[in-house]
Amino acid sequence: MAKIDLNCDMGESFGNYTCGLDKDVVPHISSANVACGFHASDPLVMEKTVVLCQKAGVRVGAHPGFPDLVGFGRRQMQVSPDELRTMIIYQVGALKAFCEAAGLKLQHVKPHGAMYNMAGKDEVMARAICEGVRAVDPSLILLGLSGSKLIEAARAIGLRAAREVFADRAYEEDGSLVARTKPGAMITDEDEAIARVVSMVTQHKVKAVTGREIPVEADSICLHGDSPKAVLFAEKISAALKAAGVTIAPMADIAG
Amino acid sequence: MAKIDLNCDMGESFGNYTCGLDKDVVPHISSANVACGFHASDPLVMEKTVVLCQKAGVRVGAHPGFPDLVGFGRRQMQVSPDELRTMIIYQVGALKAFCEAAGLKLQHVKPHGAMYNMAGKDEVMARAICEGVRAVDPSLILLGLSGSKLIEAARAIGLRAAREVFADRAYEEDGSLVARTKPGAMITDEDEAIARVVSMVTQHKVKAVTGREIPVEADSICLHGDSPKAVLFAEKISAALKAAGVTIAPMADIAG
Amino acid sequence: MAKIDLNCDMGESFGNYTCGLDKDVVPHISSANVACGFHASDPLVMEKTVVLCQKAGVRVGAHPGFPDLVGFGRRQMQVSPDELRTMIIYQVGALKAFCEAAGLKLQHVKPHGAMYNMAGKDEVMARAICEGVRAVDPSLILLGLSGSKLIEAARAIGLRAAREVFADRAYEEDGSLVARTKPGAMITDEDEAIARVVSMVTQHKVKAVTGREIPVEADSICLHGDSPKAVLFAEKISAALKAAGVTIAPMADIAG
Amino acid sequence: MAKIDLNCDMGESFGNYTCGLDKDVVPHISSANVACGFHASDPLVMEKTVVLCQKAGVRVGAHPGFPDLVGFGRRQMQVSPDELRTMIIYQVGALKAFCEAAGLKLQHVKPHGAMYNMAGKDEVMARAICEGVRAVDPSLILLGLSGSKLIEAARAIGLRAAREVFADRAYEEDGSLVARTKPGAMITDEDEAIARVVSMVTQHKVKAVTGREIPVEADSICLHGDSPKAVLFAEKISAALKAAGVTIAPMADIAG
Repeated sequence: MAKIDLNCDMGESFGNYTCGLDKDVVPHISSANVACGFHASDPLVMEKTVVLCQKAGVRVGAHPGFPDLVGFGRRQMQVSPDELRTMIIYQVGALKAFCEAAGLKLQHVKPHGAMYNMAGKDEVMARAICEGVRAVDPSLILLGLSGSKLIEAARAIGLRAAREVFADRAYEEDGSLVARTKPGAMITDEDEAIARVVSMVTQHKVKAVTGREIPVEADSICLHGDSPKAVLFAEKISAALKAAGVTIAPMADIAG
Repeated sequence: MAKIDLNCDMGESFGNYTCGLDKDVVPHISSANVACGFHASDPLVMEKTVVLCQKAGVRVGAHPGFPDLVGFGRRQMQVSPDELRTMIIYQVGALKAFCEAAGLKLQHVKPHGAMYNMAGKDEVMARAICEGVRAVDPSLILLGLSGSKLIEAARAIGLRAAREVFADRAYEEDGSLVARTKPGAMITDEDEAIARVVSMVTQHKVKAVTGREIPVEADSICLHGDSPKAVLFAEKISAALKAAGVTIAPMADIAG
Repeated sequence: MAKIDLNCDMGESFGNYTCGLDKDVVPHISSANVACGFHASDPLVMEKTVVLCQKAGVRVGAHPGFPDLVGFGRRQMQVSPDELRTMIIYQVGALKAFCEAAGLKLQHVKPHGAMYNMAGKDEVMARAICEGVRAVDPSLILLGLSGSKLIEAARAIGLRAAREVFADRAYEEDGSLVARTKPGAMITDEDEAIARVVSMVTQHKVKAVTGREIPVEADSICLHGDSPKAVLFAEKISAALKAAGVTIAPMADIAG
Repeated sequence: MAKIDLNCDMGESFGNYTCGLDKDVVPHISSANVACGFHASDPLVMEKTVVLCQKAGVRVGAHPGFPDLVGFGRRQMQVSPDELRTMIIYQVGALKAFCEAAGLKLQHVKPHGAMYNMAGKDEVMARAICEGVRAVDPSLILLGLSGSKLIEAARAIGLRAAREVFADRAYEEDGSLVARTKPGAMITDEDEAIARVVSMVTQHKVKAVTGREIPVEADSICLHGDSPKAVLFAEKISAALKAAGVTIAPMADIAG
């Protein structure tokens, strides 16, 4: 029987600033990517978010990003492999401590924003990230874009890897995401998005933006909790997957 | 036979800025307090510093501070116990990851600067810090001023504690440090400083600023590596202690 | 005829984080206190906020705070007079540049949060702030709590000063604000708050928390734009003042 | 008679960290590029640096950089034109306030590090920077690499521009700098460097890395104050230029 993990970014509030409907989305996911203070979050938010996940029975992963709070980690930065590896160790270590304080085991690491996108295509960056993850704990799972350099690098150095797919994004024929600047990049129709996800999970294929069907491997689906509509969609997709006979399970039960 | 630990702040460089003669002082100490990125340091410096300690056979402790890079953690900040506990968890967790990446066990935690001074006199802050340390790892040692609230709080919640004394600072009759703004606060004569330390370690007493002899308990002596003179003094004091029959040992072998 | 300025903190968003209903509250005020990047805001937000005020015909003031983004400038920090004076020059200078870029003259400076509260009672801090303001432009107005050290310091060094009162806060008999931790500190009934403000503006007196009537001088009333209710209250108080024959005018037309 | 400006980066210390021999190099230059707090410096350092320049009779320019303290502004960041323009306004405005507080007129703006290099080749970035400079004060001079997009953009929007050349860098035939990663990028022989500078200033030509002589226009020479050797070189080059009949003058007397 098919299994899939549902992941969502969480814990992106910062000091006086609130961001994300964490409490609303947490019942509908199986894994949370928790920000680590570089692109969002602070120590107080990290503790609260880990406890929220714990109470909801959701597995916790670290969501390290570039040191760019004002840019929310979405701006590309040119960093050396040593800088990148150590910024991963630092952030993952910090979140791991909150997990251990709560009696939880940290499950995975998903790079955030520009770091995720850059490393998905750059094997030197991908390798540096994976080496940082392994240095903290070799049993951690690397969550990265299905088919990307991140997945390759994780496997190459002996980390477990979980392949992520997107419900709301169109794919090129080579399996990469259609750039947001191109027409058709976003799947805005919810029913279409759900149908695509069910196909990716149960049939291992999806229709590329060109119309051609392509193979795709999915261990985890990226959901969002940044708006009431996104939360409602998370609930819908979870229900649709269950109705299709798919089991929702944390990536620790799925990743290769 | 008397044993004493010699500790020194290390890893306080930041990005392009170099600070501290870490390589020169490391041969003369048994424990290093390594900055964690809030008042000084960055991920790259933390990794290098941990490796430097490892090669020198020096035990590593975390040196968390207030989030005040421009003030070097020396400015008092009014933070809540929750903020304080979580900023400890965050910083200690980050440094612990670098230790584990190097195959080392983190030995201790010493609060830095204004945090050390404030918590030494404020039991709510002392408690919050110790709870943060215990949350990360209950086997960690808390390094605080001998006779301070930090030592009391550590013991009250079940942490091991190491009592720190200063070679270059005068003491009030109650065992607190003479404020730097008062005359006679600093012991500037090296021979006098060395004689005082030997007395504290072997006789458990020291002459207060008033001239009266007071009892003092010492598990670790605070040395400095910020100038060639400080490094030379570290070497001298280490030699003088050995000559007095004292064994230099990491605080893990000493702390109650 | 009585005149009063209505001021509100604005431009407190930061990067990806939105905070405050600036567009909704701006029609109801005459002066805006615009955050300068230390406790909130960023360069992009500063530019947008200045342009928003310009279009609404609202005068712009700088709202400098402590360098504590995660604490939103609400945590007390121990800074030297030199640090304080220069952090004022820096922040006021930055906002002044955005005003000049828009063809506006910067009207005033209101210290934010913990800086406002500390300097209201500490003449050394008050003096340092006022010296920073004067160094940037001696024609700037200092906006501070009516009766506080900030007003005294401004006048002592030759700055114009605007005396601020609060619609939603109770006063002690000496004219200071009742601490938020005490019962009765907040005036929660809107009609009572409005009646108190009208009394302060037209009769120069208000009932202290003890019940006794005390004198108070008001050049500007502090309003809020952080919730729909606050915006509605700003609209109500503006209407009530006009109905009482009071003219709403920027503090440049009022301050002594 | 030939005139040339000698410029040097200054005011790059930060909090507890000291960097640069500002007092030693300031007698040998005519214009200083003063860091503005994003890649280096803090308000206290900015004030001290402006006063140091004032006493030495050296003209002050702003040296804005990317918001990347740990990377010292040397890491490329992908920022939007709006972000770039406003980060220029913010930083230049802050430094301008320190100049005005000292009774000085801000002379110029030189982008720092990665911002300087990226904008030198990218006309959208160059334009955004120049628009930020003009927004603060249209009489400011833009200091950029001779022949670069920055010079073009400044002139295109009506700013005065000063063309910078490097004593210690080799040039490609097209007038761009040889990348530091390539062999021969640095001119390490001091006599050769001095001869090249004299040729650039008096003959308007220099030998490219290929050996071919190319034309070059120089209004200002970039010197360094980061080491005793660099300071000595600044002194030498100043003397050599004077001996060759060249007048050292601030770029305000030179720039087109």
